[in-house]
Parts: sequence; structure tokens; C-alpha cells
Amino acid sequence: MTAADLPDPLPDLLTIPTPALILDLERLTRNIARMSAHVARLGARLRPHIKTHKCPPIARQQVAGWFGGVTISTLAEGFAFADAGFDDLLYAVPLEPGKFRRACDLARRVRRLAVITDDPDLPPLLSAAAMAAGVALDVFIEIDCGDGRTGLPFADAARIARTARAIAGAKGLALAGVLTHAGQAYAARAADERRAIAELERDRMQRVAAELERLGLEAPCVSIGSTPAIVALDAPLPPNFEVRPGNYAFFDAFQAQCGVCAFDDCALTVLTAVIHRGADKVVTDAGAIALSKDIGASDFFAKSGYGLVGDVAGRSLGLRVAAVAQEHGRIPVPDRALLDRLPLGARLRIAPNHSCLTAAQHAHYWVVVADRVVDRWPVARGW
Amino acid sequence: MTAADLPDPLPDLLTIPTPALILDLERLTRNIARMSAHVARLGARLRPHIKTHKCPPIARQQVAGWFGGVTISTLAEGFAFADAGFDDLLYAVPLEPGKFRRACDLARRVRRLAVITDDPDLPPLLSAAAMAAGVALDVFIEIDCGDGRTGLPFADAARIARTARAIAGAKGLALAGVLTHAGQAYAARAADERRAIAELERDRMQRVAAELERLGLEAPCVSIGSTPAIVALDAPLPPNFEVRPGNYAFFDAFQAQCGVCAFDDCALTVLTAVIHRGADKVVTDAGAIALSKDIGASDFFAKSGYGLVGDVAGRSLGLRVAAVAQEHGRIPVPDRALLDRLPLGARLRIAPNHSCLTAAQHAHYWVVVADRVVDRWPVARGW
Repeated sequence: MTAADLPDPLPDLLTIPTPALILDLERLTRNIARMSAHVARLGARLRPHIKTHKCPPIARQQVAGWFGGVTISTLAEGFAFADAGFDDLLYAVPLEPGKFRRACDLARRVRRLAVITDDPDLPPLLSAAAMAAGVALDVFIEIDCGDGRTGLPFADAARIARTARAIAGAKGLALAGVLTHAGQAYAARAADERRAIAELERDRMQRVAAELERLGLEAPCVSIGSTPAIVALDAPLPPNFEVRPGNYAFFDAFQAQCGVCAFDDCALTVLTAVIHRGADKVVTDAGAIALSKDIGASDFFAKSGYGLVGDVAGRSLGLRVAAVAQEHGRIPVPDRALLDRLPLGARLRIAPNHSCLTAAQHAHYWVVVADRVVDRWPVARGW
Repeated sequence: MTAADLPDPLPDLLTIPTPALILDLERLTRNIARMSAHVARLGARLRPHIKTHKCPPIARQQVAGWFGGVTISTLAEGFAFADAGFDDLLYAVPLEPGKFRRACDLARRVRRLAVITDDPDLPPLLSAAAMAAGVALDVFIEIDCGDGRTGLPFADAARIARTARAIAGAKGLALAGVLTHAGQAYAARAADERRAIAELERDRMQRVAAELERLGLEAPCVSIGSTPAIVALDAPLPPNFEVRPGNYAFFDAFQAQCGVCAFDDCALTVLTAVIHRGADKVVTDAGAIALSKDIGASDFFAKSGYGLVGDVAGRSLGLRVAAVAQEHGRIPVPDRALLDRLPLGARLRIAPNHSCLTAAQHAHYWVVVADRVVDRWPVARGW
């Protein structure tokens, strides 16, 4: 985004058209600095997952002082980040043949593109595509350490070895390492439970990598992920470990309710306006699209709804969004004195349950320092 | 969208980058024709709600043979539709002061902009804004007929009259009528229950309008909404009634499971590719963003998940999306023979739970006739 794209003068929190994404720059910077210091203490390499924000200016802060690599979840993110000068990308969703051509196009645009697979039949097909396109690709083997989403089961040494051999033996491909996502850390209720999951992830991945080395299949990098698991780790990681946390840039109501962060760490809110006042509620213009329909936090707190409500300065009002329609969000306000302070048009800021999904609903962030808008940054949506 | 924006040659269902919105043109046309005939039989005027698709080419089909008016849910839709030549817009979300300026800008671009309010204090403020901008606005009073979302309670004759007087007495504003949304029809399990809700909506709104007339406050139009309620009506409506169904253009798994449509009426699907094969599941690249996290249908069928799965031709496979992550959708496939027919890269089409929210996740529709892509149409997202 260039200065020419910015409204002049910049609006403020009382004049930005609602609903809108508000990014608190100080919280963002603090969250990024804290994770950066934490990963440095762990002795690992930080390759932030940018799927949370899809926004190059944010990623630039995240990679400051590191090697510059980022993790992406869509090829559209990849092209946007290549345009923004990022040249070391890890596309951390399993590649399938329908995306070979675009992945090779992207590889041509950057210094290094790594992809992931959990299928021993993929490498020869990908090799043919890479050779035809004249590009080289790094390939990680995805391992399932207990999450149960994607990846080869960590204990299935035979298929892991077969996949590694298929990659190592394919022209145009290089075995970059092994990768996992301990998504099960999101289901943990307490820090020690998250730490146990993270340590198990680390140990299982180390064993997988060691077994490959024993077979003469060097897996240079072990890539592990997820903000809750990384935050929970406190013992140093081996130096060949890369970590891919993403949500930490923003955090959200879900992470706060899990205890992964404090509520005051949440950097992303949705600015919204009261469009209806009832006897014991208000309805605002942040509905199912502006917030997303993620009810992640309700696994922990049944009444957490679709987001936690603060005033325009971001201070909690102790309210929640109880129901959403496409462009309506219903906020019960049992306290009559509080209701009186929320006239039609009053502005509120809602901390979403799941910041990654909420950000993807919007075209851009309004970046604020305290109550002052300082910039507007784009969201690289789509696929 | 001009022909110059289209890929040449047009891709087909096996080459469109996934995930992608697929719009079945024949089903769309059939759904639109059926609603058009139904509303003609009811003797009402049809002002389709375009929030479902946010797409001018679709709305053009919907208003064919009618008076050309449409209903919008965001001002961004309004500007996109004004650009596309629509000149009679009803913005059916309660207006608040923060949107006066943009609403007046929009009013300047069209022949008629109607807005809604349920607050007797709004009209004088809006009048001042309209006079300053040199525009005239039509204003509907929103009435709550039992939905409980927004609107003045239908039985609160005093506040309704006060609001009507405030509108009628305000320069630059005209009392256009009364409007309601029987959202409670979405919670009905059976057609006769929906009909009862729709008839109650009709009767309550007629009484509200009659009471205003008795007071000398003419409310020329009674506007009622929601696809399930309109479909359920079979007796003629009074001639001053406008109806605002929207979802009927696409329908979706939720409406099909409620019995409002057949599964074969669903015109919108998400094209997706298999990115992982497990022992008893596949994972595809249609996740929480591509599908939305709406679990609307699960109120009826706990196991309906995030969408119903068909093959690339759209034929049901009897499968559902059981879980989603941001870019992952997990589909249990207990039948081994079926699993064998779903290799890596296999393409599936998922009928979403809630087509309005799913459409809003994408930048455009790929329009297909049978398996042939014939066009690509934009989605006017944002606010």
C-alpha cells in the first residue's frame, strides 16, 4: 500500500466506516517482540506463520532479526508476499497436483519455496512438474504427532522412509526436513498440559528425524508449529528446529481464555457501531461476516459467544456478542446504566474469538496507536 | 466484469484453482423463475435481497419482469449495484449516524434509496444530514414481529406512531412504509409451522400499517422478508406488500434440511481438492475460510457439519465435512471403496450450510452449465 491509497486526512476511531478491523500497533509490536525473544531463548529459528494476518508489513516486523523466512497457507499469500520482497516461503498445507503449476510459478518468483507432502506417490509427479517448469523445490514430509489432521503417523517409520526416499531421489526436489503441527495444543486447558504436548511433539519429531538420518536420508530441518505449543515450551530446542507460530501476532479471545495470553495482549478488534437499542441489549453492525462465525472459545466457556466487547478505547465492558446474523451482532446488556451509555451510533470494539478467521473477512487493517489511526495495511485474501 | 478480465481459455471444473465458488447457472435460473412465479401468484412485489450473492448479474435475473428494486445489506453493496445500473435500493439494516454521509453519497447516485430505522430519535438527525447533502431519502420503520433481533415491537403502537410522525415531519425524508424480517421462520421445523409464522407476520404488519393510516400517517408499503416465510405462504398478499427473499437464488444445505428446497435446488457449491488421504477420511483444501464456519444445519441434524459433499459433477456422495481448520476440511469416508476413488487431487463439490456466508468468503463465482465454465462474476464484498 502506498501513501496515495490512504484517505487524507486519516479517519479516527469515531469516523472509520464500520465494521472495520482495528490493529493496535503497540500490542502487535509487544507480542512480536515477546515471541521473538522467547524463540531466541529456545535456540530455534523463527519462521512465523503469516496466515493469521496475510499482511507483509506485519511479517516484516516478525522476521526482523531473523533469517527472513515465513510460512504461508495459500498460494495467494505466497504471490502477495513475493511481490512484497519475501523470498523464503514455506507453503504449509499439503500440496496436491492441481496446484503444481501455480506453485512452480511462485517458486520462480522467490529464492526458496518449500512445500509439504505426506504422500509417497506425490514426489515423482511434482518432480516432473518442477523439471518442466525449470524450478527447484524444497519438500518437507508432514508428520502427524497426535493432532490427527494431516501428515504421516509419527510411528509409521516405513512410509516416512518411503516418502523421504521418493523426495530425495526426485530431480528438482530436495528433502528439506520433517514438519508437524501440534494442533491438539488448542484443546489443552492448562499450561502444563500444553507443555507436555509440545515436548511430546518435539521428542517425536526428533526421533523421526534421527531415524531418517540413520537411513542415510538427511532431514536438515525439523519444523514445529502452533502458538500455544511454542509459548508452553521452556527448555531449549535443538538448533535444527524451526518454529512456525502465527496467532501470537494478534492473539484473540480464545487464546486469552485458554491462558496462552492476557486479554490485554489481544491486538486485533472489530470496530462496530450500535444500530439498535432494546430493553436489555444492543445490536451492532458487526455480524457473522465481520466477526466470522468461529465459536472457538465456547469449548471452554459456553457463554463466550462470538466475541468479547470493549468500549471504543478497547477497555472491556464485560459484555459478549451472543448471536450473529449476516450483518447484525446481538450484545445482551443487562445493566441499565451501561445501556444508557450506548446510544445509537455508539462505537464498540469486539475482540474476536479467532483472530485469523476474523482478519480474513476484511480487506484491510486500520493501524492505530492509542486512539490515533496511523496507517492502513492490506489483507492478502483468497487462494 | 468485462470479457477482458476473464482467463482465456476459461478453465473447467478440473483446472479451476481450488477452493472456488461454483455457481450452477441452470439451478440458479430455475430457483429464480420459481420464486418469481410464486411471488406473482401471491400478488406482491418482489424486491430480492442481494446480500446472498452481492452480484449484479444475478440480481439482473432476479428483477427481470419486476420493477427493478433490490434490497442490500451493506453500503458497499449499494455502491457496487449503483455502478451496475440499479437505481432503486432498500438498505435493510438499521441506519446509524456514522453512516449518514455515505448513505447520502449513495442516495445521490440512484433514483431512490430507502433506509430503515426503529428509533424515533433518528429522523431529525438524518433529515439534517439529507438536507445538507441535498438528497431525499425514503425511510421504513422496522417492526419486530417476533424475531427479536431489531425493530420496534409490533404491539408498541405508541412508539411506532412516534417514529412515523418523526419521519413524516422531517424535511428530506418520506415515510415509505413498515418493514419486518421474520427470522424466526429459520427455526421452524415444518412447512405448516413456517406458514403459521409467515401468516402471523403478514397479519401483524397489516395491523401496524392500518393503525398508522388510522392516525393519518400513510405507510404506502409493507415489506416482509426471508425465503422460508415467503416460500411457505400460499394465500395472496395485499397489493401494497413487497417481499424480500434472498437465499432462494442459491438455497443451501440448511434450507434443504429444513425442507424449504430440495437438495438438487442448491445452486452454489465450493469446488475443492483432496490434499490428504487417511485410513478412513480425506482432507480437502476447503476449510473454515472457503466454507465459513456456519453450522446452521446442525440445529436440525447434529452431524451435518460444515457442508455436504458431492463429486465433481455435484452428485451427493453421502459424506459431510466434519471439521475445519483455516485451510483444511476433514471429511470422514468410512467406505473403503469410495476412499479408493478419492486420490490426492481428486475434486469434490461441497454444498455449504449457509450460502450467503460462504459466498461472502470469495472474490468471484465460476458460473457453470453442467461441467462447462461459461463466465466468472464478482462478489461485492466488504462494507
